[in-house]
Amino acid sequence: MVTKKQIKLIKSLAFKKNRIKHQLFVVEGHKIVAELLDSNYEIVSLFATIDWISKNSVNNVIQVTNSDLSRISNQKSPNEVLALVKIKKNQILHLDGITLVLDNINDPGNLGTIVRACDWFGVKQIICSRDTVDIYNPKVVQSAMGSLLRINVSYTDLSDYLRNVSKPIYGAYMHGDNILDMEFPKDLCLIMGNEAHGISTEISQYIDYQSSIRNIGNSAESLNVAMATSIFLYEISN
Amino acid sequence: MVTKKQIKLIKSLAFKKNRIKHQLFVVEGHKIVAELLDSNYEIVSLFATIDWISKNSVNNVIQVTNSDLSRISNQKSPNEVLALVKIKKNQILHLDGITLVLDNINDPGNLGTIVRACDWFGVKQIICSRDTVDIYNPKVVQSAMGSLLRINVSYTDLSDYLRNVSKPIYGAYMHGDNILDMEFPKDLCLIMGNEAHGISTEISQYIDYQSSIRNIGNSAESLNVAMATSIFLYEISN
Repeated sequence: MVTKKQIKLIKSLAFKKNRIKHQLFVVEGHKIVAELLDSNYEIVSLFATIDWISKNSVNNVIQVTNSDLSRISNQKSPNEVLALVKIKKNQILHLDGITLVLDNINDPGNLGTIVRACDWFGVKQIICSRDTVDIYNPKVVQSAMGSLLRINVSYTDLSDYLRNVSKPIYGAYMHGDNILDMEFPKDLCLIMGNEAHGISTEISQYIDYQSSIRNIGNSAESLNVAMATSIFLYEISN
Repeated sequence: MVTKKQIKLIKSLAFKKNRIKHQLFVVEGHKIVAELLDSNYEIVSLFATIDWISKNSVNNVIQVTNSDLSRISNQKSPNEVLALVKIKKNQILHLDGITLVLDNINDPGNLGTIVRACDWFGVKQIICSRDTVDIYNPKVVQSAMGSLLRINVSYTDLSDYLRNVSKPIYGAYMHGDNILDMEFPKDLCLIMGNEAHGISTEISQYIDYQSSIRNIGNSAESLNVAMATSIFLYEISN
């Protein structure tokens, strides 16, 4: 059974200030919870229906009815299990390969999709500006799926970070050099900018190479930032 | 002023059966309406705030207050103008280049993003299975933006269509040939499948080349279908 206090806590975690206060976030659905149980995230509580419990041998599960689950879920169709998970304090790591840097990505669906693309293309680290949407926002968690658990996402002052980067820094622009004609080194930083305004002026000064995806149709105003990120990662990693 | 009857009609168009019945759909926001006015779509009514009217010399605009606009809008932050537009009966065209075929795409955001990617990469035609989400769904319209007005989207029985296609037919699979190693002709059909189940068995029989985007990270279960489509279109069109 889920108590009123638990319902209140879980519901409150839809808001960033409460996630920060409690250092908790919510993960929903049997697929991502299966991956969560295999990850190094710390699960604080697990709420599940009898169906889920009967199929999984996990200790300390709080059994809930489907209607309880609906009451605590953020989703239209709640899916068997919901976990309260401790937020990880991710540090910036010094890794080889591609480091993706996000300058003020606002849309949670875009961030989630970008996390998934990173996972697909073997990118281990994303560094976000402080004004980028929170990685533990329920919509980000939902669209990133299990990939969220595998990518090191941290938030920092991008200027402070980029000032000390020794790898070449590439930025995605509307009118830069065609990525088809560029040679990419193995180690690099790739910066993607805000959905409406692109990379900010402040961050632009750190960029060594302005690069673009050619607009073949010549009519669409822009590519969605998550699509553009996928194409950059595809081109760079091949 | 907007009448009660108009409010009821506009609200009803959030549902496909009403869009079919009235042969109308809704377009919102000053950016897409600017493109709409330049397109060959027929606008039935245009509702706009005094701000919009003062900046645009368009006849027969129904002036509304911001609160009226909120009442008829599907969006959280209604944006100056809303148009009631006649649905176009798109026919399948015999065009050179890439024809994109969608087999049961469910998510409106995905379809909208795919339309935008087509526009970017110069793809003029999308042919959808009848169970693909409706192109005039408000969420599709919102995420496709002006690109919706430039792409010929039609719905048909895919088997009937594909049976008579003479171009080579490529399908996106999880485990096909790496698109990096493939040569693509100028004229082709590309089929993308459902978000959860991929291309259906029925449609698979028409496919000449099963193709894939290499999973470099080797952990993510799948790429989002809109991202995969963008990468395919990028690779094929370059």
